[in-house]
Parts: sequence; structure tokens; C-alpha cells
Amino acid sequence: VSIVCLNGEFLAPESARIAATDAGFLLGDGAFETIRVEEGQLLFHREHFARLDRALRVLEIPTHHGPEELLAMCQQVIDANELNLARLRVTVSRGPVRGLPAAGGEGEATLFIAATPMDPGIRARREQGIRAVLSNIARNHRSPLASIKSLSYAESLLARREAVRLGFDEALLLNTDGRLAEAAMANVFVVREGIVQTPPVREGALPGIIRGALLRHAGDCGLRLEEAPLHLSDLVAADEVAVTNTMLLVMPVVAVGERLVGDGRPGPVTRGLLGVAEELVAAQLSAYED
Amino acid sequence: VSIVCLNGEFLAPESARIAATDAGFLLGDGAFETIRVEEGQLLFHREHFARLDRALRVLEIPTHHGPEELLAMCQQVIDANELNLARLRVTVSRGPVRGLPAAGGEGEATLFIAATPMDPGIRARREQGIRAVLSNIARNHRSPLASIKSLSYAESLLARREAVRLGFDEALLLNTDGRLAEAAMANVFVVREGIVQTPPVREGALPGIIRGALLRHAGDCGLRLEEAPLHLSDLVAADEVAVTNTMLLVMPVVAVGERLVGDGRPGPVTRGLLGVAEELVAAQLSAYED
Repeated sequence: VSIVCLNGEFLAPESARIAATDAGFLLGDGAFETIRVEEGQLLFHREHFARLDRALRVLEIPTHHGPEELLAMCQQVIDANELNLARLRVTVSRGPVRGLPAAGGEGEATLFIAATPMDPGIRARREQGIRAVLSNIARNHRSPLASIKSLSYAESLLARREAVRLGFDEALLLNTDGRLAEAAMANVFVVREGIVQTPPVREGALPGIIRGALLRHAGDCGLRLEEAPLHLSDLVAADEVAVTNTMLLVMPVVAVGERLVGDGRPGPVTRGLLGVAEELVAAQLSAYED
Repeated sequence: VSIVCLNGEFLAPESARIAATDAGFLLGDGAFETIRVEEGQLLFHREHFARLDRALRVLEIPTHHGPEELLAMCQQVIDANELNLARLRVTVSRGPVRGLPAAGGEGEATLFIAATPMDPGIRARREQGIRAVLSNIARNHRSPLASIKSLSYAESLLARREAVRLGFDEALLLNTDGRLAEAAMANVFVVREGIVQTPPVREGALPGIIRGALLRHAGDCGLRLEEAPLHLSDLVAADEVAVTNTMLLVMPVVAVGERLVGDGRPGPVTRGLLGVAEELVAAQLSAYED
């Protein structure tokens, strides 16, 4: 990968430099999206760009690029790097700030687009499932930051690092009222007696793109999926647990801490959810072909 | 101001550029300190550097600069800019990250030091006091981020911006259990019947440098100051309220929302606290002279 896009310019990564006074760097003042790329096409980009817009409105960061222009720049990064299966990240910050020596460009948001090939290990991990641990860190579900992907991402990093240090793949986070919120870097789904439930956004779940697509379309495929506040007891009693995000799609969780979920193998409802997600991906791709 | 320090190099601000793949920019993965400078000297630098070290340990970011080297670089920034009364910011991030096109320097932390003249309006505002509003945003006092100054600072920014939008100077934040935590960018002190109380760190207060110095030394000056969990009712019943940070030292809060604190003017105990802070500053300066 040798081309990134910084503020509309296409550059080698080593040339993509931002001011050290950028508010994204000094204050975590910005937002990002991670977008799935298949067959060289950006999937669910409307949903990603709408969520990015919402985050920037919450942060009161004015944007200078419309969705069409943004899409064109993203596509150009993918094409320039000849990527097929990839992960593309769009990062927007407030740009250089006052109150510290500012290197010009005052009041101009910073836009950075970069892409990397998709992690090839995801498919194999889906066969086995991953192991999650309950984090000691609680998600403050009432914070305005809980429902946006802001650059102030250290809490999720800490939760994930703690999980990895303990020998797990991912962390599950409760909210500050003790109910299930999400995973460090994914949404969480709990299956019991064939019914799939996921915490509502107001409980501290990021409004994930795959999560949203599954909520809208799982019913069409005969799966019963609904939002519901979930307690630790629901997690303990689950037949299946899964996490979803743009890169994983649907990933079975086969253990939570030392306790196996069900028989410790990916279950049929999770497989059904993955099928729905794969159909939605295929529908996105065929829309490109039209 | 025309000289900053980036990774040990002294540069014009417009030349201080970091990789767009810096974890500080992409993920808010780093920490900072804002240090008071008087007579061209860094005050409480031992305390600031110790707190920075602690933050970097929490974030598992290895540092490459000892306190002596860091102090020398900070002092050089102040001297190069011929600053007398100033605010110096030390920013440390994990540096460029993997998983996105990284522009070399992998695994090397980024260190950025910049200083600006002190806001000359602080003294006048102390005479009048400031007006604070109770934020809708709650501080998650159980998060490991609550007690460090991380680069994931968007929540404090949102609280401050909300206050300013409503016509106030600062926001007071409750913790997620509904007790008083701190101000958006300062610690909070409540005075009743001559006794000063401030929330403990476990309640969501950042371990502020001025806060810590006051807690250690106010008693010597005949002030009764203690840590205590504080409820909204304590705030409502307060004779005086003040906020402290490195740049404000001790700032009277004369109104919380539409309600005046006491008679709406800075009170004698707050003046006493400011006197203690000013003595501590003077002691720091005379230590430099020795």
C-alpha cells in the first residue's frame, strides 16, 4: 500500500504529515469510520458517511467534503493501491487549533484516508470462534461520545489491550448501570432459544453499520432479532454469543472468560446471522454492477 | 512564539509535522501535561512529569526521555521563545501505528512541546469570579481514563463547549453515580462553614497538580481542606465554590447555572486558597533561585 489521501492530496504514506497542533492529535477532537472493501468497492458507504456526519455534528466540526466527493477520494485510494479485499479508514479532525502555536490552516478540518488489505485470518477465526472476556472498564452509555466513533478512542484500546494481555481476543463491556453495552471494537449479540438480542444504542452500543443492517434485514430471512437491554445473567444463560463489525461481519464468541458459551462451538443462529450479513454484502456488490 | 520541540528537534511551528498515522491522531492514544511558567521557569515540573509517567504506564506507552532530559527540552522551548509568564504543553503519543500505512518510526513515541504566553485575562476574571453550569455529561469515575490526562479529551471539550454555548465559563461534571467529580478542565472545591472539600480521585477528579499542592499545604496556612464525596446538595448549600488548575491557580465560581453562590462575589476562603497557591508558586520560584 503506497498511496493515501490527505486533505484531497494523494501521497505516499511517508509524505502524509499533519501539523503537530492538529486537534485530532492534541485533543482527540475528531471522528473516523472503518469501511469494508470487497471487489474494490466500498460497502455501506452511505451509512458510514451518514454516521460520520452525525459524529462531526456532535463534535461541531464543520465538513468541507460532500458524500460524493468523499466517496470519490476513497475510491481513488482503493484504486491507486489496487486493493480488492480491504479495510479503508476515513479520519476527520478539527484541524490545527488556536491556543498553541498553529501552523496555518486555522479552522480547516483535516481529512485523512488510508486503506490496508483485509486481515486474511478472519475467515479461519470465524470457523473456530473467538474468546471474549468481561472488561473491568464500563462504558458510560449516557456520554455523547458513546454513540459516535470519535478519535478519543483510548478507552476502547485499553479494554482491548487488557483482554489480549489476559489471553483473550476481545473484551465485552458493561455500561455504567451494569448492563451489557458492546464489545471494545464491535457490537454484541446474544442468542437464547432462537431469539437474537442486542443492546439498544441508549444502553451504550455504538450504532454499528452491520448491526443496523442486521436489525433491518434479519427478519426477512426468518431470524428473530431485536434490541433489548441485556443483563449479565442473559450473557451467562446465552446459547450463542456473537460480535459484529464492518470487518468481522459476524464473529461467533465461543467463550466468555473461562466459561464456554453453549458447547463452545459456533452455533446455528450465529451462522444464520452471518448468512444474512453475507447476503447484504452481496446485495451491495450487485448494486455496484447495475 | 516561533520555536517548538518535536521529538527532540527544535523547529518553527509550521515545520512541526507528524505522521498522519500517529496513534495520537488516529486513536487519542497518548497523554499530555499543561505546565505553568513564571519568570521563565517551569513550576511543579516534578509533579507534572510524574503524572505524565503514570498516564503513559496506564496506556502502556514506553517513554524514551527521562525527567531531566524532558525538563531541559521544555526549558529550551521557553528560552528560545523568551517567555516569562506562559503555558507549556507536553504531548506524548504512541507514535505511528501498524494496521494502517505507517510512515516509518514504528514503535517510537511522539513527543511534542509547545508554549504560548499566559492568558492575561485570568487575573481580572479572578476579581469577578466565573460562572459555571452543571453539565449533562457525567464523568465515568470508574474508567482508567478518569484519573489521567489522556489525548482522548473530547468529552471534556464537549462539556466545556456546551457551557460556553449556554453563556457560561466552565462546566461542572457529576460522576456516573451522581456525585460531584470535577470541572471540564479543572478541579472543584466547595466551601461550607469555613471547611473546604474537594472530591477524591476515586470520585472522578483528575489528580490536579494545584489540587494536590493545596491538599498538602493548605493546613499549614490554617485552612481546613479535605477530600470528601460531594453531593449536588453540597454544591447547592455551598458558601463558596472554586475551581483550580495549573493556569487558573484558584478561580472563584460565583454562580452555578442561574443560582448565585453565596452573595455572588468571590469569598474569603477562596481568597485564602489563592493565597496558599500563590505562596506555593513563590516557593517554587525561590527554589529556582537557590
